[in-house]
Amino acid sequence: MMRRVGRRRRAPSGRRELVIGEYAKYDLARAERTGVPEVILAEGKSVEHLVGILRALAREGRGALVSRPTPAQRRRLRQEVTRGLAIVELASGRLLRLNGPLVDPPPTGRVALLAAGTADVPVAEEARALLESSGVSTVVAYDIGVAGIHRLTRALARLERKRPRVYLVFAGREGALPTIVAGLVHGPVVGIPTSVGYGRGGRGEAALLAMLQSCAPVAVMNIDAAVPAALFALQLLGRDFPRQG
Amino acid sequence: MMRRVGRRRRAPSGRRELVIGEYAKYDLARAERTGVPEVILAEGKSVEHLVGILRALAREGRGALVSRPTPAQRRRLRQEVTRGLAIVELASGRLLRLNGPLVDPPPTGRVALLAAGTADVPVAEEARALLESSGVSTVVAYDIGVAGIHRLTRALARLERKRPRVYLVFAGREGALPTIVAGLVHGPVVGIPTSVGYGRGGRGEAALLAMLQSCAPVAVMNIDAAVPAALFALQLLGRDFPRQG
Amino acid sequence: MMRRVGRRRRAPSGRRELVIGEYAKYDLARAERTGVPEVILAEGKSVEHLVGILRALAREGRGALVSRPTPAQRRRLRQEVTRGLAIVELASGRLLRLNGPLVDPPPTGRVALLAAGTADVPVAEEARALLESSGVSTVVAYDIGVAGIHRLTRALARLERKRPRVYLVFAGREGALPTIVAGLVHGPVVGIPTSVGYGRGGRGEAALLAMLQSCAPVAVMNIDAAVPAALFALQLLGRDFPRQG
Amino acid sequence: MMRRVGRRRRAPSGRRELVIGEYAKYDLARAERTGVPEVILAEGKSVEHLVGILRALAREGRGALVSRPTPAQRRRLRQEVTRGLAIVELASGRLLRLNGPLVDPPPTGRVALLAAGTADVPVAEEARALLESSGVSTVVAYDIGVAGIHRLTRALARLERKRPRVYLVFAGREGALPTIVAGLVHGPVVGIPTSVGYGRGGRGEAALLAMLQSCAPVAVMNIDAAVPAALFALQLLGRDFPRQG
Amino acid sequence: MMRRVGRRRRAPSGRRELVIGEYAKYDLARAERTGVPEVILAEGKSVEHLVGILRALAREGRGALVSRPTPAQRRRLRQEVTRGLAIVELASGRLLRLNGPLVDPPPTGRVALLAAGTADVPVAEEARALLESSGVSTVVAYDIGVAGIHRLTRALARLERKRPRVYLVFAGREGALPTIVAGLVHGPVVGIPTSVGYGRGGRGEAALLAMLQSCAPVAVMNIDAAVPAALFALQLLGRDFPRQG
Amino acid sequence: MMRRVGRRRRAPSGRRELVIGEYAKYDLARAERTGVPEVILAEGKSVEHLVGILRALAREGRGALVSRPTPAQRRRLRQEVTRGLAIVELASGRLLRLNGPLVDPPPTGRVALLAAGTADVPVAEEARALLESSGVSTVVAYDIGVAGIHRLTRALARLERKRPRVYLVFAGREGALPTIVAGLVHGPVVGIPTSVGYGRGGRGEAALLAMLQSCAPVAVMNIDAAVPAALFALQLLGRDFPRQG
Amino acid sequence: MMRRVGRRRRAPSGRRELVIGEYAKYDLARAERTGVPEVILAEGKSVEHLVGILRALAREGRGALVSRPTPAQRRRLRQEVTRGLAIVELASGRLLRLNGPLVDPPPTGRVALLAAGTADVPVAEEARALLESSGVSTVVAYDIGVAGIHRLTRALARLERKRPRVYLVFAGREGALPTIVAGLVHGPVVGIPTSVGYGRGGRGEAALLAMLQSCAPVAVMNIDAAVPAALFALQLLGRDFPRQG
Amino acid sequence: MMRRVGRRRRAPSGRRELVIGEYAKYDLARAERTGVPEVILAEGKSVEHLVGILRALAREGRGALVSRPTPAQRRRLRQEVTRGLAIVELASGRLLRLNGPLVDPPPTGRVALLAAGTADVPVAEEARALLESSGVSTVVAYDIGVAGIHRLTRALARLERKRPRVYLVFAGREGALPTIVAGLVHGPVVGIPTSVGYGRGGRGEAALLAMLQSCAPVAVMNIDAAVPAALFALQLLGRDFPRQG
Repeated sequence: MMRRVGRRRRAPSGRRELVIGEYAKYDLARAERTGVPEVILAEGKSVEHLVGILRALAREGRGALVSRPTPAQRRRLRQEVTRGLAIVELASGRLLRLNGPLVDPPPTGRVALLAAGTADVPVAEEARALLESSGVSTVVAYDIGVAGIHRLTRALARLERKRPRVYLVFAGREGALPTIVAGLVHGPVVGIPTSVGYGRGGRGEAALLAMLQSCAPVAVMNIDAAVPAALFALQLLGRDFPRQG
Repeated sequence: MMRRVGRRRRAPSGRRELVIGEYAKYDLARAERTGVPEVILAEGKSVEHLVGILRALAREGRGALVSRPTPAQRRRLRQEVTRGLAIVELASGRLLRLNGPLVDPPPTGRVALLAAGTADVPVAEEARALLESSGVSTVVAYDIGVAGIHRLTRALARLERKRPRVYLVFAGREGALPTIVAGLVHGPVVGIPTSVGYGRGGRGEAALLAMLQSCAPVAVMNIDAAVPAALFALQLLGRDFPRQG
Repeated sequence: MMRRVGRRRRAPSGRRELVIGEYAKYDLARAERTGVPEVILAEGKSVEHLVGILRALAREGRGALVSRPTPAQRRRLRQEVTRGLAIVELASGRLLRLNGPLVDPPPTGRVALLAAGTADVPVAEEARALLESSGVSTVVAYDIGVAGIHRLTRALARLERKRPRVYLVFAGREGALPTIVAGLVHGPVVGIPTSVGYGRGGRGEAALLAMLQSCAPVAVMNIDAAVPAALFALQLLGRDFPRQG
Repeated sequence: MMRRVGRRRRAPSGRRELVIGEYAKYDLARAERTGVPEVILAEGKSVEHLVGILRALAREGRGALVSRPTPAQRRRLRQEVTRGLAIVELASGRLLRLNGPLVDPPPTGRVALLAAGTADVPVAEEARALLESSGVSTVVAYDIGVAGIHRLTRALARLERKRPRVYLVFAGREGALPTIVAGLVHGPVVGIPTSVGYGRGGRGEAALLAMLQSCAPVAVMNIDAAVPAALFALQLLGRDFPRQG
Repeated sequence: MMRRVGRRRRAPSGRRELVIGEYAKYDLARAERTGVPEVILAEGKSVEHLVGILRALAREGRGALVSRPTPAQRRRLRQEVTRGLAIVELASGRLLRLNGPLVDPPPTGRVALLAAGTADVPVAEEARALLESSGVSTVVAYDIGVAGIHRLTRALARLERKRPRVYLVFAGREGALPTIVAGLVHGPVVGIPTSVGYGRGGRGEAALLAMLQSCAPVAVMNIDAAVPAALFALQLLGRDFPRQG
Repeated sequence: MMRRVGRRRRAPSGRRELVIGEYAKYDLARAERTGVPEVILAEGKSVEHLVGILRALAREGRGALVSRPTPAQRRRLRQEVTRGLAIVELASGRLLRLNGPLVDPPPTGRVALLAAGTADVPVAEEARALLESSGVSTVVAYDIGVAGIHRLTRALARLERKRPRVYLVFAGREGALPTIVAGLVHGPVVGIPTSVGYGRGGRGEAALLAMLQSCAPVAVMNIDAAVPAALFALQLLGRDFPRQG
Repeated sequence: MMRRVGRRRRAPSGRRELVIGEYAKYDLARAERTGVPEVILAEGKSVEHLVGILRALAREGRGALVSRPTPAQRRRLRQEVTRGLAIVELASGRLLRLNGPLVDPPPTGRVALLAAGTADVPVAEEARALLESSGVSTVVAYDIGVAGIHRLTRALARLERKRPRVYLVFAGREGALPTIVAGLVHGPVVGIPTSVGYGRGGRGEAALLAMLQSCAPVAVMNIDAAVPAALFALQLLGRDFPRQG
Repeated sequence: MMRRVGRRRRAPSGRRELVIGEYAKYDLARAERTGVPEVILAEGKSVEHLVGILRALAREGRGALVSRPTPAQRRRLRQEVTRGLAIVELASGRLLRLNGPLVDPPPTGRVALLAAGTADVPVAEEARALLESSGVSTVVAYDIGVAGIHRLTRALARLERKRPRVYLVFAGREGALPTIVAGLVHGPVVGIPTSVGYGRGGRGEAALLAMLQSCAPVAVMNIDAAVPAALFALQLLGRDFPRQG
């Protein structure tokens, strides 16, 4: 009942909108307006609504990304794939990609991704998958910790040779890595706390606060917010490009 | 007793350090390494320590900025000015400037500063003073609120004509402005919550959380963190320039 | 043992009460006194107690609504339906309706329901089901977000043509929608945060605080409190009617 | 320098805006659009900015209200009064009134204000002053507590004879009064926690949570938010009136 | 291995202790010293440890109570019952009773138990089971709410005729009932918040704070702390008795 | 204007009430109904309101206690004393006593007060002053700490010889004393956290939580809540007496 | 794909590092540098990554410990054991031991472990397993509570005869035991809160705060942080030994 | 009245106690029993009580330390000095020293103190003053930050040459320094968060959580808890010494 065909509507303002049932309105102009691809936060949406949105977009020939799908949503979407919906799983299933164009033209410049420990890697990989899906090249350094600080120096030297325009630094527990990186490099550093750690301040709480309190200039995303971090990096990269066009 | 002359020392690594008494070590290479000027957080430091640091820097011919001075610190520094210390007050005294070079060469590109309400303006002006001290040109739009959303559209159109490379958006209370801006512009948006608002979620707490929860890609600084926001903007701008040199 | 027949008792004050076992006393005069239907919060009650209450009410010929049933409670109540208990599921099972009269006479006036995103729709639909069960007509606008503010203006214009007497605005994450609506419309705006969003401030926490901090006059309900919001709207509507009678 | 004359500007959209220096933009159409008077939150604004705004409004012949002035702001505004600015203090100085029209036409209907204890009275009086400034008649019952519940019944009977359209209920400490009132009356109840009480849950925190958890339908404002509560009541009252016109 | 026979040891101080493996030491003199029965908090203990303790006590011929058993612990203990351990489930399994003497002599006086809503009844029943196991007579009034305050007056009058020496009042959500009771009765009132309610302040948080903020003299126990509340009541009752002996 | 004479009114229910201006209603029957004296919480009340209440009570010949007066209130009340208001300061000014009868007849039984450290003594003395004002005899043991546990044993032995009916135990910082006392004595133990201690968990927060988590049956009052603790003790003592009359 | 053979690399600084896929870098010099064995926090790591790390270490002939494995990780590692990975479960599976050398030479001195209640024993046993795996002898006293303080004195006397160099004290709920121990013994006391207790302050929160607020000198670890506590003890013991070598 | 002469009393247990008025009992055996000097927490004590305690100790010929005196307490104690009380101010007045013996014999071994920034130095100096008063030699490295990590390596190398037995590491804001130190040195590291930093996580909150979450073994003291940290270090040092005697 809720899966009626999405209707495409040109708004009075000249902006186009895709109306999907009563429950969703897809802003067709956002990618163009802001330079970032459409990403649908799956978590919190009913499975029916999520499927309805993706089918409507596929019908329109639009690409999209789906973040934080629940296991139930992934099971259902795998069924939809067998019915022809062109979705692939990225980053061990933390990000889904609906076939179709995302951003045009692709942004220029390289993004560095750092992860303090092995447990932070899946979150970093989620951001990396989004960036590479959007045509951005990346360079990574994982498990470089802060309890053996000499390892960090070597890793940063390797990254800097690639001239990244922004550093996305993922860390859980005490969350010190973004601060240390920001004291050593020339580019902007974005800190992304991960939900790693137990006890008081665990699940990323201490890491978030530590990044907000950083004694070096670190901009902060929410806990596990790999996708917003990657989109922010895209907007940062994308600034030069269309201005040159 | 603690005000002995600062000794200049070349570290084994080739980096220079200025040792001031037992209580401070000034990293002379940081500005060069990271592209941002030295900013001394005055809050929390004893008046004696603060004066000692500034005198030692002045003796070295280094410029610096001083953020969040307390009234007692400002009173004392005004006395020091009469004794020859070259300090001026910026942004109604929220930022102090010690005469001398800050960053060389100055970064390129323009920064947009937006403030949701009149009460957010002093924090925005603190960031603006730092940016302009560092040779960056700015463009501002203040008191554009969210309770009358039509006013925002007009303001953004004016700002976009100036082609800013980054948007610093200051808001207290419910902190919605960065989200709305990030849905409308092409460049990266940094949200800075201000300590405006009373009751539960006041003093910037709700604004901080709202920015962390933004449904658009917003990177977040701590409450009233005008100086880290401006430094982050400098690092973002500065990336192209030395690469072209 | 606890399922003895409910006894009907006229209180000395003239108010009637239905005593159900030792564990429940049903205030038969509340609907008349306050103008809102009886709603039983299922969550937290044992399945036995819930069934006992509904059977006693059915025996009395009273209608009722049941909010936030758990999956176990819903399974059991479906069994009871096969035994003759007249219950239907509304709003995808978030609200249950026991057949029988609810409020008399029905309130006048229309209620507008807005939802910021698709994930907020189920909570809004719960309120809508309660309102329509009580004989109130509604008008809705869903997924109108704040990251594309132009979409909101169009939706509000459509709603205002229906002359709603109150706006119930549902939003999770940064919870900005009620503030923006309250700056644009002439009627009272009630904000209902939804448990949407992850990380710090997630599960509706940021949205709740943002609504409490709103720079426009917004009255706030608790997170996911669709039922109290709808009852509040009923009391607001109901004021004129019995006074005219 | 910042006190230049406010310029009046007709926006492209047909809405008028009063620009005051760089720091404030006054939305001249808001009162008409939303049915509530302009209220300036003084707290958090610099004294210079506050004076500048009030002078510009006075020059335009606009009335306004000023909420939560600090002692320093009140001292300065008293000086301005001697220079001709037409401001009067209401509710023992918690609210200031700049002479001039506020809302036109005035809303119809009566508002009931209840305060649990003597310490809650000043907050209630702030709301009452705003309502009466806007031409609304009020009826009050103060210090009716919950520790002697019989006193409440008598007070409510007296209030109901006045047929208020909304009940604003102020309570600190355990904040139970709005719940009890909402279980007894026919109209909508808005709870306003006050910053009364010490220890854990003090300063209104327990009261706020208790109102959010109310087992009766209570809409909640922030702690000490007398002004938003009064504005919400105005919007609630104002709905009928212009529709009849 | 860990289930060796408990050894009974007379401490140098003359107090007896039962040593159970390396993991538990049972204070055989506590009941006599403090006038309350031994209650073992099951939650948090491994199933092996819990069984070991109960077997050792049974071997000694001591009675005991077990509070907050988990489903896994209850399943295992049911198996032990088939092997001869004399345990019965009380209060729908929230409290377990190991056969054997508890307190001697039993305390005098009656305890009143009140529950605000049906969802609070299971917690109240847990306290009642402990009290009645210890030989104390009780009187109860359940589901007397605060949203219909007239129902409370009638219930209290009935209770007072039984001359209880202490009132245990259970309430979740806004937790107002203990305050109202304490303003109306002559005996001491103990408030026990229950983990009832959703959203902010839910799971008993608001109720706990409201009781701590009570404007009447209410002593407070932790959320769902039925057992400590009952033990406190026992100590209160027990004071007169041994003094007469 | 607000200081009109209090009017004495017999309520329809037969209970008497003293109406003082618009801001206060004094429940003349509460002491009789609940067995505890009237205590006015001064904190949060305006000086004018506080004076008005005390004058009206004095005119009626009623005694009262005033808790937590601010320095400004105390200064003003000292002036009133010179004008004939019969007030004395108790417990170093933490409690004020308006001359006149408080409770009749006085309760029987003795109360033990314990304080963990010297800094907790002023709070304990506030409770003691209330109890002794109400005709109750007390026995105290102060600065008996938990870091030298042998000192406690000796103190408890001395107290128990006085046969107190209830133990009020005051402790800040880690708040362990009530737990230890409750494991050693036969009577009910009430824990009162004090606002002693700095850093995380300071100002009584850790002590409050520790008492709520006590592994012995401890009933808890709010931080620094000496007066509610003393009133609770009075209700506990007072139970036998009127029943014997 | 991610399970390529770990490559051993001698860092420029002379320190050796084991690179495992892209996701892990093992610091081969840490044990030597800091005197503590390598412990891998399993929680938060993907099963694939955990297995990859352990296989690479086994291939190198290195021993290691694995803390806080999840049930899924333990199931998988048991499969690996059947494939030849030399892992044993310690402390009921809370700690895993990969065969191979850990620290060399083993530290000298004895560690005392105390647990307040039976529910704290599993956490203490985790620390004990780590210490004994590292060649340290331990002495324990469990279930010595604080509600019967005489039992503690006897236990401490027994422990002191063994001359431990450090006391690790585990306690949940009100967390008072470390404070009491620190007031009685001559050696350093480390408090480890355990996640025992329900309601407000439960899951170790109250215990953590109480230890931070201790009126005796107690150093604190996070909730359930048995492994960091044991490592801290190792560093404390280890100080003398290599200095003598 | 409260300043009667302290009476010296030999407890039944053989331990001596100095009774000072009703409000203080001084444990004369604690220093001997635990190896740390008596430190009186001044904060929270009335000035009268503090003076009384110090006079009684002086009369006994006992030395003591006084921590966290308020400005009012310091003013009064300076007057007492003119009356012959032998008190000196240490660490800029954060610690006071009453002349007389403290610990005997003095502990052996050296303590290293590190401070991340200049603002952390006063807290570190407070600990240093206590240690040096107790006869312990110290070695310090201040303002070595984490935003320029190369500076830390040089400082640690210098400290390690002095062979400290324990590292006390002070840090505010993001609190990363203890973690980094613990990954590089062989001895035990104690982290002391300082109340440095503004906004969310400020005043030491982020630093405390970050230290609790440290990925290296760091034991943690409360915010600004310089004195407990120093006492813990004393107990750690003192272990060897009496064993040699």
